[in-house]
Amino acid sequence: MNDVLARVGDKWSVRVVMALAGGSRRFNELRRDIAGISQRMLTRTLRGLERDGLVSRAVTASVPPRVDYALTPLGNSLRDPVARLGNWAIANIGKIETARALFDAGSDHTKL
Amino acid sequence: MNDVLARVGDKWSVRVVMALAGGSRRFNELRRDIAGISQRMLTRTLRGLERDGLVSRAVTASVPPRVDYALTPLGNSLRDPVARLGNWAIANIGKIETARALFDAGSDHTKL
Repeated sequence: MNDVLARVGDKWSVRVVMALAGGSRRFNELRRDIAGISQRMLTRTLRGLERDGLVSRAVTASVPPRVDYALTPLGNSLRDPVARLGNWAIANIGKIETARALFDAGSDHTKL
Repeated sequence: MNDVLARVGDKWSVRVVMALAGGSRRFNELRRDIAGISQRMLTRTLRGLERDGLVSRAVTASVPPRVDYALTPLGNSLRDPVARLGNWAIANIGKIETARALFDAGSDHTKL
């Protein structure tokens, strides 16, 4: 289970799954939609998601070749739990940042 | 949001949050409950969760000192989304392992 959690909880995987929730996307569309991801990291994340059966890759033999990525049925079933985790993160990021600032400024963790 | 997802989706953080869902635990109890975690990784994971305000740490001045870890209210609010992700992983690990075996044995990813 740990390696499955490592994949589905991975921050970039979460972002890619959320970006594909609305339908298939091309590589450069994903790169534009996911702020801060590098070409290398997007390639690696898509490869991992494809290997896990969560994302499919369709190649159209044009010049240049066109590659579309989409969630598989398994990937679609991951949308809801991932969205809940993502929404929790969005709702609570302020509290977490406050906690971090207090911890770093202090704190209790130096007492023992 | 990415660093929040990195924390809450981290495989060991998920395991610790799930282990603390039933109530407070001492360090060695957590280590026993979470198969495969090293002392170093548990220390590091608890420190990260404490810094994020998700886990509290209560020290009792006995000899030796006793340290109990528990979910904070913020940590408790994370239980549900984390459990959903964990349950999804448990339910789908078989499909993911099959997909990985097919991918590694093949496959489509060598075609372009």
